[in-house]
Amino acid sequence: MAAGSDKEAVVSNKQVIFKDYVTGFPRESDMAIITTGNQKLRVAPGSKDIVVKNLYLSCDPYMRLLMKSSSGIFSPYTPGSPITGFGVGKVMDSGNPEFRAGDLVWGITGWEQYSLLKLDRLLFKIQHTDVPLSYYTGILGMPGVTAYAGFYEVCSPKKGEYVFVSAASGAVGQFVGQFAKLMGCYVVGSAGTQEKVELLKNKFGFDDAFNYKEEPGLNAALKRCFPQGIDIYFENVGGKMLDAVLLNMRIHGRIAVCGLISQYNLAQPEGVHNLMEILYKKVKVQGFAASEYYPQYSKFLDFILPCIREGKIKYVEDIVEGLENGPAALIGLFSGRNVGKQVVVVSPE
Amino acid sequence: MAAGSDKEAVVSNKQVIFKDYVTGFPRESDMAIITTGNQKLRVAPGSKDIVVKNLYLSCDPYMRLLMKSSSGIFSPYTPGSPITGFGVGKVMDSGNPEFRAGDLVWGITGWEQYSLLKLDRLLFKIQHTDVPLSYYTGILGMPGVTAYAGFYEVCSPKKGEYVFVSAASGAVGQFVGQFAKLMGCYVVGSAGTQEKVELLKNKFGFDDAFNYKEEPGLNAALKRCFPQGIDIYFENVGGKMLDAVLLNMRIHGRIAVCGLISQYNLAQPEGVHNLMEILYKKVKVQGFAASEYYPQYSKFLDFILPCIREGKIKYVEDIVEGLENGPAALIGLFSGRNVGKQVVVVSPE
Repeated sequence: MAAGSDKEAVVSNKQVIFKDYVTGFPRESDMAIITTGNQKLRVAPGSKDIVVKNLYLSCDPYMRLLMKSSSGIFSPYTPGSPITGFGVGKVMDSGNPEFRAGDLVWGITGWEQYSLLKLDRLLFKIQHTDVPLSYYTGILGMPGVTAYAGFYEVCSPKKGEYVFVSAASGAVGQFVGQFAKLMGCYVVGSAGTQEKVELLKNKFGFDDAFNYKEEPGLNAALKRCFPQGIDIYFENVGGKMLDAVLLNMRIHGRIAVCGLISQYNLAQPEGVHNLMEILYKKVKVQGFAASEYYPQYSKFLDFILPCIREGKIKYVEDIVEGLENGPAALIGLFSGRNVGKQVVVVSPE
Repeated sequence: MAAGSDKEAVVSNKQVIFKDYVTGFPRESDMAIITTGNQKLRVAPGSKDIVVKNLYLSCDPYMRLLMKSSSGIFSPYTPGSPITGFGVGKVMDSGNPEFRAGDLVWGITGWEQYSLLKLDRLLFKIQHTDVPLSYYTGILGMPGVTAYAGFYEVCSPKKGEYVFVSAASGAVGQFVGQFAKLMGCYVVGSAGTQEKVELLKNKFGFDDAFNYKEEPGLNAALKRCFPQGIDIYFENVGGKMLDAVLLNMRIHGRIAVCGLISQYNLAQPEGVHNLMEILYKKVKVQGFAASEYYPQYSKFLDFILPCIREGKIKYVEDIVEGLENGPAALIGLFSGRNVGKQVVVVSPE
């Protein structure tokens, strides 16, 4: 590759192509692995574009929403083009004075070996490299900011409160539970396998956890875990779990709506029936997204980096090697195949 | 009546008795009018109870919830005893130094001619009598505080925002719409008859209004009225209307959950499907109740009394004469029979 030189940069670029809009559960065959042999990746004179070599790619549930032709406020993926998502890369060529060749960055990139990133893409320069670079797809990236903002800003937690986290061993849930313990809350998580339940209790320090797939009733499971009720629900799944949680909320409870993964593959979302509880218990339900908290990213790093270095926060990643294994890893999110944050390694650092 | 004298007070007391728990739509026959001929209503020595003669009674949708054996956090009505609700009365006898015989009061009382009120009942002394006393069941009582707190405190409105109010000509909705106009918002209301729609547009000054019973689709009606979307939804009805509103919310929209009257008579509440919009649009949904804002009641009066005296706020009551007509008035709320705030006159002032 000779990006930035006078010659045009010509690379062989392996890509994960989005084939067409998806209904129901996504499959590996909804994506195609191709290698473009003659792609010209260089920054045009006067442009502020950046060319990156992608190192790590992040599998996040919201990506399923971009596979629908109409996805709420998101712009869907373009059939025939690579899918996009959060990733970590190294700058190869840059027309943007804020980034130089050799810089490590994280932000929105393509699922491919090399990406030409336009100026409007979200991109942060990585300043701290004493932690694994893959962490910038998780604890130091969007999922970490999501957990931090959702728990501290949206939920306004207080010491001693009762906190429930669904999808609790996932990319966001594992931090929410640990933040809640740092705050002095009582924390219970739900997950979909016994292995994940053990992880919650033994590694992440949750006070209790249950396997939602093995409970005869979610309401009964929550009543058992929270005889006093729930002050804070960190919502990652939606549907039947939300319905059961609503029945167990306490007065002035808060529900941070981070994700509704159980609904993403349904043509028609499930109905939620117990919304009267919002009235009875004066509950606040708040949708939010990490994107609004990026201006506070350096404050977040000041908090989280010492936690990582001192071992106060544990982090579990599920790492898959090779871009060609990315589609299987991504769709695995929707069957709960991953244990911890799902990352795809595109290239060794 | 000779309450407070050495003799026991013996009165003839007409009452509306709650017969038994109700499923489905309430009927007049769920209540019985009886006259107790020999009731002893006096304040026992040393007690802080109060005896009131009831003048006006308020019909409010939440009363339906007290007719269920299990009603969320509310204590249900007791079969065989009078139903209770907000009302205006005159103190006949008092063991409470804060109230004296002759004082006018509003608060929670019984549906009967005379009530013995325990110290724990909510009761305010009426200080301003240059407005009709019945107003203390509405614009100067719980519904007024509800509209004020729900709009100004829960919705954090800004000038120029788009506001939608359901059940907009009702006891609370009519004030919300007028407060929103005072704030410089664009306001649309829904109601269930053409007469109410005209009232909204011509009396209360809503920018637009529609009859939800005559619209082929609620989503289409909202899209027509709010091509730009909705910033604030003041929720009085729930169910299908909430589902349609969710599809039309703007980023950072707020939904104040004041009531869900369409659900109160259902054994199983309807499912609401479009909760993904809470995530997409970062919407806040907040349940609330006037009860938490009563400490600010005098501040509320400072705001609302001048509005009434200067004619800045219009108020429509639907007044029924006679306690024996109370049950029909109360159940009329659930078919939308009332036009404006439903009040029952028990006794001329």
